[in-house]
Amino acid sequence: MATGTNELPSLHPVPGIRLATVSAGIKKPGRKDVVLIEAAEGTTCAAVFTRNAFCAAPVTVAREHWQASGKKARYLLVNTGNANAGTGAQGLQSARTSCEQVAELAGVDPETVLPFSTGVIGEQLPVEKITAVIPEALAGLTDEGWADAASGIMTTDTRPKGCSVRFTADGREYTLTGISKGAGMIRPNMATMLGYVATDMAVEAEVLQQALADAVAISFNRVTVDGDTSTNDACVLLATGAAGNDPVSDLGSSEGIALRDALQEVCVTLAQALVRDGEGASKFVTVQVDGGRDEQECLDVAFTIAHSPLVKTALFASDPNWGRLLAAIGRAGLQDLDVDKVGVFLNDVLIAENGCRAASYTEEQGVAAMAPEDIVIRVELNRGNSGASVWTTDFSYDYVKINAEYRT
Amino acid sequence: MATGTNELPSLHPVPGIRLATVSAGIKKPGRKDVVLIEAAEGTTCAAVFTRNAFCAAPVTVAREHWQASGKKARYLLVNTGNANAGTGAQGLQSARTSCEQVAELAGVDPETVLPFSTGVIGEQLPVEKITAVIPEALAGLTDEGWADAASGIMTTDTRPKGCSVRFTADGREYTLTGISKGAGMIRPNMATMLGYVATDMAVEAEVLQQALADAVAISFNRVTVDGDTSTNDACVLLATGAAGNDPVSDLGSSEGIALRDALQEVCVTLAQALVRDGEGASKFVTVQVDGGRDEQECLDVAFTIAHSPLVKTALFASDPNWGRLLAAIGRAGLQDLDVDKVGVFLNDVLIAENGCRAASYTEEQGVAAMAPEDIVIRVELNRGNSGASVWTTDFSYDYVKINAEYRT
Repeated sequence: MATGTNELPSLHPVPGIRLATVSAGIKKPGRKDVVLIEAAEGTTCAAVFTRNAFCAAPVTVAREHWQASGKKARYLLVNTGNANAGTGAQGLQSARTSCEQVAELAGVDPETVLPFSTGVIGEQLPVEKITAVIPEALAGLTDEGWADAASGIMTTDTRPKGCSVRFTADGREYTLTGISKGAGMIRPNMATMLGYVATDMAVEAEVLQQALADAVAISFNRVTVDGDTSTNDACVLLATGAAGNDPVSDLGSSEGIALRDALQEVCVTLAQALVRDGEGASKFVTVQVDGGRDEQECLDVAFTIAHSPLVKTALFASDPNWGRLLAAIGRAGLQDLDVDKVGVFLNDVLIAENGCRAASYTEEQGVAAMAPEDIVIRVELNRGNSGASVWTTDFSYDYVKINAEYRT
Repeated sequence: MATGTNELPSLHPVPGIRLATVSAGIKKPGRKDVVLIEAAEGTTCAAVFTRNAFCAAPVTVAREHWQASGKKARYLLVNTGNANAGTGAQGLQSARTSCEQVAELAGVDPETVLPFSTGVIGEQLPVEKITAVIPEALAGLTDEGWADAASGIMTTDTRPKGCSVRFTADGREYTLTGISKGAGMIRPNMATMLGYVATDMAVEAEVLQQALADAVAISFNRVTVDGDTSTNDACVLLATGAAGNDPVSDLGSSEGIALRDALQEVCVTLAQALVRDGEGASKFVTVQVDGGRDEQECLDVAFTIAHSPLVKTALFASDPNWGRLLAAIGRAGLQDLDVDKVGVFLNDVLIAENGCRAASYTEEQGVAAMAPEDIVIRVELNRGNSGASVWTTDFSYDYVKINAEYRT
């Protein structure tokens, strides 16, 4: 199951970026499972990686290379079918070998090649299958390769995910295009959220990193399917500079603001696409918490609701169960919460206030509010001016089925 | 589904305690849904209540009465079928009215009557149905009433839960008997964990409270089905003093230690019984974390594992999915965790070490270890001398079914 549309939007080429998607037969013969992304010389690279202490070998190597190269990148090498996680020293060697092979054939420094893997945990990466297809990948690079790459990085995703915008700053037009994969915050066997975003704008490395960190904080870090965090999560933002502008050195400049807005739009769209394709998802749920003392307490309430199995099973049943919502809000750990001031809305319907069912509320209103595929749960804390939103899905039989039966 | 035995053990009467279980027809005609527990004059009462900010009306009133009476209690009045939660001012009045009725008929101070409710959230308590049966309850009090009361406090529990021990201190014999209900940490419509434990030992109020707090910390607070916390949770410990000892004034005395040990045994048994009867439970899982720097970090790891939907669905599938266990450990938020030192065991089988599958491990061993109903997941952090255990269940189709279909 999944919610929303299956259609991949048109993805604009990004000057300075070429992509190739080839088949290495890592897990299934014939499956296009290796993606190579090339960035023009001089491209700056921002990146965020999983915070899980058990990070996969490619994450360790990608982080090392990225830092050693001074946050430049010439090639991103992505494989599906095997996460190269829980694979010890041999796994690290495999990740390094694949980068060295790209570097040798492309004539670049190995440290400018970053590896990414997604798929089954705990099996050694068949690195020779990957190195064998690198010549084909290098020969097949094209600036039109975004849509194929969006499909090539999928694991158990039911559809490719991408977003592309054109934006203008100081009279110059830029492109920002991104793809992502993942059908949960974690797919621990078929692990991982991956995101690759590129622009032709020239941006200084530190500014680019800040822009990515800001965008991830309100996009990929605001979605949850099951609360689990992958060992392989990564999101990369490339700035090729092919547009010819002077490198952006200030996020507060008109160019910086334009970049930030475009990046936010692309990252939020990609992040929401992960939730819409969430494991067993039959609902797309926005949990919006307003009136908090600060953003963090709004997020605490929002994530407590979004992670509650009882709320999620009620959502699956389209049951306007305000008691479960109040109970989740009440255990979110807020200091001195005055429950009599809390209001809870389903879409525009006030369902609970003063710690009880709202006087105006009827069960028919709640049932009608729960019927659509897209639902907004809004909590008004009425104790401050901060707000925050997260996006999540319901918990269905299919979630249990997918995750219980995956290895059997 | 449920794990373990259905049989209620023999529950010894506690001198000074009488119980009655009667039918008020709160939700279903004929269902025995009201329990009255009488404690002899002079009984001291310890109590712990839900930390959920949205606490139910009876919790508010019970806490008020308990404090106002100087931590004495003469009557506990429990109803099922209606949680009297999310019911506002009228709900508070209903709880007070029921206590006043008991007090008037029994000739005691209303503040020595504590009310407890469990059942559907958000519907007003039909208090007149309860007050109507109080004369019958008072007339039916008997010291043999524990087993009936264990059944009388059930909601969607599939079986009654009780535990009873006799213990000796300084040559004197004492009895400690308890009952509990709940098939999850929360049943948000059929809400609540409730526990009632009594002894004939005389114990000073502050000592009794400390003994209960200590026991709850390692029993009821160590179990989780779904991570949700009820609006109605409560656990009460009564000490009637009918054994005739001088009131215990020191938990470190031989009598205090004997009380602590007996209470721990009873509370752990009652708490584990909740998990064994957990919603949709097909496994009883002990998550034991050793080698931590302090108890809290062991608990953080244990609860992260116990709450992970991905671990829980793997348990349902009897899948020895060590990758999901490592991923859960890795996101538990431990500072400077050296993943290469972490070992993970299923029962006695080492399944993961050095951040990978253990060299000695075979899939056959894992499948064999996962086969029994009772499973121990043991994590060795190898960075300190602290340890902690929690108990949980798997996530099954039935969990989704029970929680998705409850109101439909």
